[in-house]
Amino acid sequence: MSKYWNERVHNLDPYVPGEQPKDRRYIKLNTNENPYPPAPGVLQAIKDAADDQLRLYPDPNEDELRAALAAHYNIQSDNIFVGNGSDEVLAFSFMTFFSPDRPVMFADITYSFYKVFANLCELQPAIIPLNDNFEIPVEAFCEQSGGAVIPNPNAPTGREIPVQAIRKILEADPDRVVIIDEAYVNFGGETVIPLIKDYPNLLVVHTLSKYSALAGIRVGYAFGDPGLIQGLNRLKNSINSYTIDRLALAGAKAAIEEDDYYSQMAQRVIRTRENTVKSLDEMGFSIIPSRANFIFITHPDYPAEDLFHKLRTRGILVRYFSQSRISDYLRVSIGTDEEMKQFVQTMRELLG
Amino acid sequence: MSKYWNERVHNLDPYVPGEQPKDRRYIKLNTNENPYPPAPGVLQAIKDAADDQLRLYPDPNEDELRAALAAHYNIQSDNIFVGNGSDEVLAFSFMTFFSPDRPVMFADITYSFYKVFANLCELQPAIIPLNDNFEIPVEAFCEQSGGAVIPNPNAPTGREIPVQAIRKILEADPDRVVIIDEAYVNFGGETVIPLIKDYPNLLVVHTLSKYSALAGIRVGYAFGDPGLIQGLNRLKNSINSYTIDRLALAGAKAAIEEDDYYSQMAQRVIRTRENTVKSLDEMGFSIIPSRANFIFITHPDYPAEDLFHKLRTRGILVRYFSQSRISDYLRVSIGTDEEMKQFVQTMRELLG
Repeated sequence: MSKYWNERVHNLDPYVPGEQPKDRRYIKLNTNENPYPPAPGVLQAIKDAADDQLRLYPDPNEDELRAALAAHYNIQSDNIFVGNGSDEVLAFSFMTFFSPDRPVMFADITYSFYKVFANLCELQPAIIPLNDNFEIPVEAFCEQSGGAVIPNPNAPTGREIPVQAIRKILEADPDRVVIIDEAYVNFGGETVIPLIKDYPNLLVVHTLSKYSALAGIRVGYAFGDPGLIQGLNRLKNSINSYTIDRLALAGAKAAIEEDDYYSQMAQRVIRTRENTVKSLDEMGFSIIPSRANFIFITHPDYPAEDLFHKLRTRGILVRYFSQSRISDYLRVSIGTDEEMKQFVQTMRELLG
Repeated sequence: MSKYWNERVHNLDPYVPGEQPKDRRYIKLNTNENPYPPAPGVLQAIKDAADDQLRLYPDPNEDELRAALAAHYNIQSDNIFVGNGSDEVLAFSFMTFFSPDRPVMFADITYSFYKVFANLCELQPAIIPLNDNFEIPVEAFCEQSGGAVIPNPNAPTGREIPVQAIRKILEADPDRVVIIDEAYVNFGGETVIPLIKDYPNLLVVHTLSKYSALAGIRVGYAFGDPGLIQGLNRLKNSINSYTIDRLALAGAKAAIEEDDYYSQMAQRVIRTRENTVKSLDEMGFSIIPSRANFIFITHPDYPAEDLFHKLRTRGILVRYFSQSRISDYLRVSIGTDEEMKQFVQTMRELLG
């Protein structure tokens, strides 16, 4: 608390990221990172970019990277915005497309940064409760509003929303922007990037932090109609002309060319996820069907918060949200086969 | 223009960075980059960080980097905020400390991003005219206001403000935050970082883009009382938890340890600056006394805009601002000795 903060900063309720403890070595299943390393070609491209040119500003328009993305997704460069991680892309989107005079919809159980962004922008959120199966209530999202943001698959549940439902939400109110946050789409989901040609109110957000195993270099994208992308650039260029450094630009471009590698790693994560689900199911856990690189689990006899602390003591970090409706759940990122074997084994011991 | 932009984004007037043309090879004296490469130890540290750990998020609190900075500047870690370049640090400072109900002071001739930030935050700027010698009018900045931002040395003039004047401005109104933007302080100026212990309303902003020859990795700092730093972190954590990537963290930390190298390079830049000033003076140019890695020059007989275009045609980029009071001036970044010899030689030819 300081008298120098303005009113908005006094009223903020900042996001708290998953812990990154340094006290000991953990099996880290708490921040949905990829358990496999970045593609070798990506690391090489970054090393190659670590040269004397670092004295120069990066390209503020990310032309080369956007051209490579455009070719990869069969869209145009002016359909693409690049940000310093998808959180920045999302924050800038809230700041660009939403207004305090019209409510912005998001689910009660969803990525918890959305309500932080809404607070930052002094918006009135319209909180839409998921149904009892933790599914998005499509009809409710079809009501008129000032905007909507939906992760697909949803976090922290891992549940997929069918593309047909997204079309319906987009068509229900073409005057508002709908953000589809596809951070986890590459672990079995279906992207709606092809729909940006049909829906000028659709913004699709991606990140390199999950599928591309590059949480450490901070790159995220938004895909949408050029009108939306221009708005994001207006905002960005009123804050920071050069948000993406030369090393991240090089790494991100190389990652596009390494899609075969990443696709194989994602298949491994999916197999490990399904094996883990089977083992947990045998122990009496309920598991929400997941299309992401994490699972959301609950046990009828063992309180989640208690399991969270016991796992931590035994060197395994998962995520627990002290929040109504999900306080009986744990979110568990999918690690390597070896890590998940240890997780399952430890869980068996905890359950006796 | 798009119907999806909110009112604020409609009203923005984004910053336009110095051009980064790709059509041919230029002598680039237009964006105040360091003409010398980053220290070898910095490049090695970045290469070493380009490993499998990039799959993991970086430390959102930059603990190691801030500890190294604290030791270097003889301050505490909680006196330090780290941002994605000093533009982001400045934007976040405007968003944290200034309010629409009280005017924020900055000079008429200064870093042009300040008025963009003011516009972004819907502030009422109080524009303070520099005197006829392009000096900061200290008394005017001592009037009460909602805040003030002053680069020292000033850009694009290069003029230094005496530390005593900054003390006076800080003391004149202890209830407002005064930002001293020291982007160029290491080319002969004097930092006011030691004053943060005495003035809880002082925020000092630094960048790695100039002195540290790392414009390509995007790191900036704010130094101030813990109350100010907490406010900046509240804002940052409402936008993006992880703004600094692992490679930038490694490079920035290494740069602190390479101060001998950077100090030598800065001495070279200063010597080159003084030699360039001497040559231009002989050609009849007036040159504002500079403590920065650029000079601000005007000629009584040759219009600056004309010289700007002619230099560009001959492969030399400098910066021209089409703005009242300074439309007769060129801002010329100090390059290597060889580059500046070519610049002086070309200028001689243009002047006949």
